Amino acid sequence: MEGLRKFPPRPTGAGEMFQLFRDGTPHTRASLVAETGQSRSTVAARIEALTAVGLLAPAGEATSTGGRPPSTFAFDPSARIVLGVDLGATHARLAVTDLAATPLASADEPLAIAEGPDHVLSWVAEIGSKLVAQSGRQVSELAGIGIGLPGPVDHADGRPVNPPIMPGWDGADVPGVLHRHLGAPVVVDNDVNVMALGEHRTACPDEQDLLFVKVATGIGAGVVMDGELRRGAQGAAGDLGHVAVTGADTPCRCGNTGCLEAVAGGLAIANALAAAGSHAETTQEIVDLVRAGDVAASQAVRQAGRDIGTVLAASVSLLNPSRIIIGGILAGAGEHLIAGIREVVYQRSLPLATQHLRIVTSQAGAQAGVIGAATLVTDRFLAAHSVDALITVKEDT
Amino acid sequence: MEGLRKFPPRPTGAGEMFQLFRDGTPHTRASLVAETGQSRSTVAARIEALTAVGLLAPAGEATSTGGRPPSTFAFDPSARIVLGVDLGATHARLAVTDLAATPLASADEPLAIAEGPDHVLSWVAEIGSKLVAQSGRQVSELAGIGIGLPGPVDHADGRPVNPPIMPGWDGADVPGVLHRHLGAPVVVDNDVNVMALGEHRTACPDEQDLLFVKVATGIGAGVVMDGELRRGAQGAAGDLGHVAVTGADTPCRCGNTGCLEAVAGGLAIANALAAAGSHAETTQEIVDLVRAGDVAASQAVRQAGRDIGTVLAASVSLLNPSRIIIGGILAGAGEHLIAGIREVVYQRSLPLATQHLRIVTSQAGAQAGVIGAATLVTDRFLAAHSVDALITVKEDT
Repeated sequence: MEGLRKFPPRPTGAGEMFQLFRDGTPHTRASLVAETGQSRSTVAARIEALTAVGLLAPAGEATSTGGRPPSTFAFDPSARIVLGVDLGATHARLAVTDLAATPLASADEPLAIAEGPDHVLSWVAEIGSKLVAQSGRQVSELAGIGIGLPGPVDHADGRPVNPPIMPGWDGADVPGVLHRHLGAPVVVDNDVNVMALGEHRTACPDEQDLLFVKVATGIGAGVVMDGELRRGAQGAAGDLGHVAVTGADTPCRCGNTGCLEAVAGGLAIANALAAAGSHAETTQEIVDLVRAGDVAASQAVRQAGRDIGTVLAASVSLLNPSRIIIGGILAGAGEHLIAGIREVVYQRSLPLATQHLRIVTSQAGAQAGVIGAATLVTDRFLAAHSVDALITVKEDT
Repeated sequence: MEGLRKFPPRPTGAGEMFQLFRDGTPHTRASLVAETGQSRSTVAARIEALTAVGLLAPAGEATSTGGRPPSTFAFDPSARIVLGVDLGATHARLAVTDLAATPLASADEPLAIAEGPDHVLSWVAEIGSKLVAQSGRQVSELAGIGIGLPGPVDHADGRPVNPPIMPGWDGADVPGVLHRHLGAPVVVDNDVNVMALGEHRTACPDEQDLLFVKVATGIGAGVVMDGELRRGAQGAAGDLGHVAVTGADTPCRCGNTGCLEAVAGGLAIANALAAAGSHAETTQEIVDLVRAGDVAASQAVRQAGRDIGTVLAASVSLLNPSRIIIGGILAGAGEHLIAGIREVVYQRSLPLATQHLRIVTSQAGAQAGVIGAATLVTDRFLAAHSVDALITVKEDT
């Protein structure tokens, strides 16, 4: 009876067979026939094509149930390499990864983004090339370069759009410049989106709807719905820093008053601490004070959490995520920040939207950005190439 | 150079060829070969399979460029029928449509949802059967039934979850009951999602990111991102009615204070009017007062627009839609509501998110619900059956 009411399931199609391998699980021809409902000859031809392009490799023999043991096949993430780049205002992280976005070599360097795109991107290419060599591979093996920038990016053409803390970068052809240096396809996104993607894939890949919130000097979010990062019409989705906080009237550098960033960002907390007689120059120093047990700092961070909570409560009503993940430097202040956020979100949201909601601290931490940047590339590369391989099968058979 | 930086495009696969027909455009075998990059034999086999299941029909001959003129094929939306149902608290709309969600027969009837699921769903089945007969078709031709309910629905199993204005419906097996009556698959969603879907498909199908806001006694929204309705983890996404309005402290029936619905819903406006010496019992009467030129009513509706605008400004920062569509009974008050909304959204949002944002009134109007409900069905039916047909091709050739 239940079955009769359902539409027939959408059968596993072209690119989807390869997706079964993405998590690393090995499969035999027989298990794929069972899982996909495809004929034995179709499955065999697809495995052959994916093996020919290097995405699948033999992975030993499965246990036999009598007769010759069946061969197993598994995704070979070493087929190509990727360069993931996470640029901040004063800091850069780079990693060469395999096609599973697992780092093979990485670097963590001071960098002034204000030196402009020519200087910074040449430097990225130089360090990137060194990391490729360090991991024993060639630049020609790059499947692509993924890069996160600390400002708004037009996702369609990969160019920054009026980025406030990146002088000289407005409209810069980041993909073109990096491609001239390294000769591989380039994907650009803002830093919070790449962190959200890195966190999603490493910490909770099965979660379909989540909000990743970066709390540092600035405040921003990455939106995942139905398992994919959602960027909105101009790639500006998740820009929570300038949402009005109920009851607040602090002037903000954007020209409005009461913006979340002006009320609960690193600078606002430092100002609150100064008024209470404590002293912190940077967001990291605020975190250090909290860890050292400074009461005023703990109270200020908890209040910032409450203010962030008012904006997140509205976001919970709008998006109904199953998880909110708090990242960024201030997440290092631990339970004080999260406690303030939880207090307001659970009070201000409807029960249906919070009954299964978890609010947690980032697990990927500082690595979220480079892993996410590499993942931007692996997703596109594997989607494009696995389908290529399968289309070839179809035309041949 | 530009091409070198790009990943190869994902080739047109299985279900995607049929999608080229969904907008009604006729195609020839040759045009499909050019558009999809598939071989002539693959295209021919797919057309044959789609014709065999009735989804495609010959559509005359194209202009010849010499020799025998090529045959054209087009989607045949009359292959099956659909029942779309939009239930409100005191009102029901039903329509029998074809597979393009174009109404063939419709009904618009008073109905008390509070009479409970058994009574209401029997009635829906009875009126639905009459409409099927009236459109000259058979109940056995139903591809499915789509139904929108005025309360939260668990999208996975189609059951209402604690719906505040639907006594007796909590957890009711709506799909099971309707299937027993009519023998077709059933898809259930909340009324605002169904309206958002209907509006999206009829008024602006190419818009990828939009927010549809229903403003009536209650206030709620449907979220479309990357071209699809996004429902969130429990199907509660878009529930804006209980987001806090900056500076407001009106008590709300949900137990919190300052909720958008308590500040700017139909009842709140009626209360504001009573205080100003005007009188309206229902949201429709408020609209009538505004249309009659009542100054207090116009001012109250514009203020409601501003309050809705504060919540929508936060939504614009979070989702970066390219369009906000205002529907529901109060949208009938015209420019007064929209003007208040625009005033606050453009003032409170960042320029990047509003540079291409349009805020408009619903075009589908009262029909949005039934068309959306029918679309829930056609989308699933066509996705499932077109892929079925194509899979059959692949196994055969």
